[in-house]
Amino acid sequence: MKAEIIAIGTELLLGQIVNTNAQYLSQELAHLGIDVYFQTVVGDNEYRLLEAFDIASQRADLIVCTGGLGPTQDDLTKDVLATYISKPLELHPYSYEMIANFYKERGMPMVESNARQALITKGSDPLLNDVGMAVGIALEYNKTFFVLLPGPPREMKVMFKQYTIPWLKNKLGEETPLFSKIYKFTGIGESSLENQLEDIINLQQNVTIAPYAKEGEVALRLSTKALSQFEADQLMCETEKVIHERLGFHIFADQDISLEQAIVEKMSSKALSLACAESCTGGMLSDMITSISGSSSMFKGGFVCYSNDFKNQVLHIPYEMLKGEGSPGSVSLETTKLLAEQLLIIADTDYALSITGVAGPHTIENKPVGLIYIGLAQKNKAIILKEIKVNGNREMIKLKASKQALNLLWSSLGATE
Amino acid sequence: MKAEIIAIGTELLLGQIVNTNAQYLSQELAHLGIDVYFQTVVGDNEYRLLEAFDIASQRADLIVCTGGLGPTQDDLTKDVLATYISKPLELHPYSYEMIANFYKERGMPMVESNARQALITKGSDPLLNDVGMAVGIALEYNKTFFVLLPGPPREMKVMFKQYTIPWLKNKLGEETPLFSKIYKFTGIGESSLENQLEDIINLQQNVTIAPYAKEGEVALRLSTKALSQFEADQLMCETEKVIHERLGFHIFADQDISLEQAIVEKMSSKALSLACAESCTGGMLSDMITSISGSSSMFKGGFVCYSNDFKNQVLHIPYEMLKGEGSPGSVSLETTKLLAEQLLIIADTDYALSITGVAGPHTIENKPVGLIYIGLAQKNKAIILKEIKVNGNREMIKLKASKQALNLLWSSLGATE
Repeated sequence: MKAEIIAIGTELLLGQIVNTNAQYLSQELAHLGIDVYFQTVVGDNEYRLLEAFDIASQRADLIVCTGGLGPTQDDLTKDVLATYISKPLELHPYSYEMIANFYKERGMPMVESNARQALITKGSDPLLNDVGMAVGIALEYNKTFFVLLPGPPREMKVMFKQYTIPWLKNKLGEETPLFSKIYKFTGIGESSLENQLEDIINLQQNVTIAPYAKEGEVALRLSTKALSQFEADQLMCETEKVIHERLGFHIFADQDISLEQAIVEKMSSKALSLACAESCTGGMLSDMITSISGSSSMFKGGFVCYSNDFKNQVLHIPYEMLKGEGSPGSVSLETTKLLAEQLLIIADTDYALSITGVAGPHTIENKPVGLIYIGLAQKNKAIILKEIKVNGNREMIKLKASKQALNLLWSSLGATE
Repeated sequence: MKAEIIAIGTELLLGQIVNTNAQYLSQELAHLGIDVYFQTVVGDNEYRLLEAFDIASQRADLIVCTGGLGPTQDDLTKDVLATYISKPLELHPYSYEMIANFYKERGMPMVESNARQALITKGSDPLLNDVGMAVGIALEYNKTFFVLLPGPPREMKVMFKQYTIPWLKNKLGEETPLFSKIYKFTGIGESSLENQLEDIINLQQNVTIAPYAKEGEVALRLSTKALSQFEADQLMCETEKVIHERLGFHIFADQDISLEQAIVEKMSSKALSLACAESCTGGMLSDMITSISGSSSMFKGGFVCYSNDFKNQVLHIPYEMLKGEGSPGSVSLETTKLLAEQLLIIADTDYALSITGVAGPHTIENKPVGLIYIGLAQKNKAIILKEIKVNGNREMIKLKASKQALNLLWSSLGATE
C-alpha cells in the first residue's frame, strides 16, 4: 500500500509554520506498515489543490490530507474534494449539533460559516472531531482511499489515532499486519542505547529495531509482520530478552507512555504523594505531571518559586543564602537542598522535588546557561542531590531539566521496590 | 515567478525528521518575491525522483531541491538530475580539491565515494559549500531553473544565502519583493474576526489579508508586493486603519509574538508584578509565562494548588468552602475569588491570577468537564471574575483556560493606560 500526504495551507508555503503534521502522519503510517512515497504541500487554491488530488490519485492508494477544513473562505479542501469526486456536500447532523451546542452553551450567536465545518461529502464516512469543530472525511473513490483531517495538530492527532486508524484497519483488512512494541528508556542517550544494541539492530531479520528520541526521552520500537499477536510475541521474544539483559535498568515502560505517566501510575498504586518546587523550569514540571489524567491522586501541589522574594517568603530560604556574592546563591546545590527539605515539611508529602538552574539566555550569578541542580527529599531518607549541565535554547533547557528531575524521581521509586 | 521546493530523503517520508528546510526556503523565497506553489518530499528513489522533477518542471519556473548530495549510494539527486537533463556529471576541480585537502590535513585516507560530492552536471554553475563537503548545482533547463542544495540545514542555509540568492537575482533581474505584516488578536475567534473584515478580505487588491488560528490565538497576515518597505507601508496603511477601527480592542501585537510575550513586555515596561494560583491548569500558565525570556522581571512566582490540602494549608482556603456538598466546592466562583485575594496578599504582587476548573476526563463535584473559573485580583481595585466553558481533551482544556486567563489579564492591563 502506497500513501501520499497532502498538507493544505498557504501559511506552509510562506514558511510561517513548519509541516509537523507530515512528520507525525509519516511515523504513524509507517507503524501501520503503509509506505509513504510522497508528501505534498499545496496552498489554499482550488485549481492547484485539484491538481494535487489528481497527481496523488495516480501514484497512491491512500491520500491523507490535513488542513483547510475550517470555517473561513480560505478553507477549501472539502469543496475541492466534492468537485473532484463529483459528490455534493451535506451536513453531518451529529457534528452540526455539536457545533450548535458549543455556541448555545456559551450564549454566543453561531456564525453561519461555522456550519461549514460540519459538512461531509455525500456517502462518505465522517471522522469525528472530539477536540475541535471540523469533522473529517474518509472515503474510497476509484480504488483510492481519501482521508481529510483538520490542520491544527492537536485535533488532527486525536482524530487520526481515534477514528482514522480503525477506519483504515477495517478497509485494509487483508494486508499482513505489522505488530509493534515500544520500550521507553530513561537515564540513557539515544546513541549510547544504539551502541549497546548495535549487533541486534544490524541483524534486522524478522524483527526490526528502531531507536528514536523525542522530547527528552529515548524509545525503541520493535516491529514484525505476523499473522497474530501470539506469533508476533514469539518472534520478538528473543530480542526482548537481550534488551532486558543489557538495558533493563533504564526501561521505564514497555508501551508508549511518557515518563511522567509511568511515575503517576507507580506513585498512585503505592499511595505515595509528591510536591514540586520549581525555579528555572517555571511550572513545566508540574504541568507535565498534571497533564496525566489521575495525577490528582498523587500530586499534592507545586511552587513556582521564580523570584528570590518568593523563595524567601513562601519557602523560607534565607536571603543570606540566596543573595550570591560569597553565599551559595539562588542557583546552587545548597539552595536546591534547602528548597526540597522545606518543601517536604510545608507540603507534607512522601517526596519533594526541587529544581534551580539557569534557563538562559543570560547567565545568573555568573553561572552558565544550562547548569541545573535537582534535589529530591523523601520522608525518613537521605536527600538526593544532582548537578547536571544541559544544552539547548530556553525551552529545551526547561524540558531537559524537568525530564532529569523525573528521571531522578523514577530511579528512587524503583529502588523502593 | 512560481517555485517548487523538493526535499529528497527517505528519512523525511518515515517521519524521522521534520522538513524544516522547506520552511526556511519558503520564507527566503517569499522575501525575494517568489511565490512557492508546491512543496514536495520524495524518497531516495531514482524513478520517483525523476517523476518529481518532471511534474515540478511542468508547474514551476524555479525548482529548489535539498538533500541527496552526500557520498553514499542513497544520495541520488545529482545522478537523477543528470539523467533528466541528459548531461554527464563531471568533477568540479575546486570542490574536489577542498575535499581532498580536508582529508589530507587530518591525515585520513579519502574514501573514493567522497569524490562524488564534488560532481556537478556539465555546463552548470557550482554553488560552493564553505561549511561542508557537497557542492551544489544551479542551472537552467527548458526555461526552468534548477537549484540543488545539500540536506543538512546548516550547510543548506549558508549556501542559499551566500551563493543561491546572488545567482537567482542575477538570473531573474529585479522581481518585486513581498512585504508582510502580522496582527495578533485575543478574545475573538477566527470566524468572527473574518466576518468583521469580510469586505476588505474579499477586496484583495494590493493587499492580501489572510486570517489564521493556532494554539488558542488568532492572527491576521497582510501581504503586499512593493519596491520598498516604505511603499509597502503606504499600501497597507488604509487596510490597517480599518482593522484598528473595527478590532483595535482585540489586537495585542502588530508582530508575530505570543500573548504571554506581549504581557511580559507590557508588565515589565510598567514595572508591574504578577503571581498565579493554578488548580486545573496545573502549572501550564506559569510555564507559558516563564517560557518568555525576561519574565523574571515581572513574574514573582506561582502556586500549583492541585489538592484541597494544598489550597487550605498554603493558600488558607477554608475546608468548609472546598468540601462541596452544599458549600461552593473547589471548583467555584467563590473559591477562585478567595484564591486570587489570598494570593495577592501572600505573593504581594500588583496582579494575582487564579484558575480553578475541570480539566477532565472526569467531572468534579458534579461540575462538567471544561468548566473554568478565572479570578484576577489587583491592588486597590475590584476583583474581576469570569466563568467560561471550553471544550477539547485534557491538554486543550488546560491550554484554553490558560489563554483565557492571559486574555483577562491583558484586557485589564490595557484598561490601565
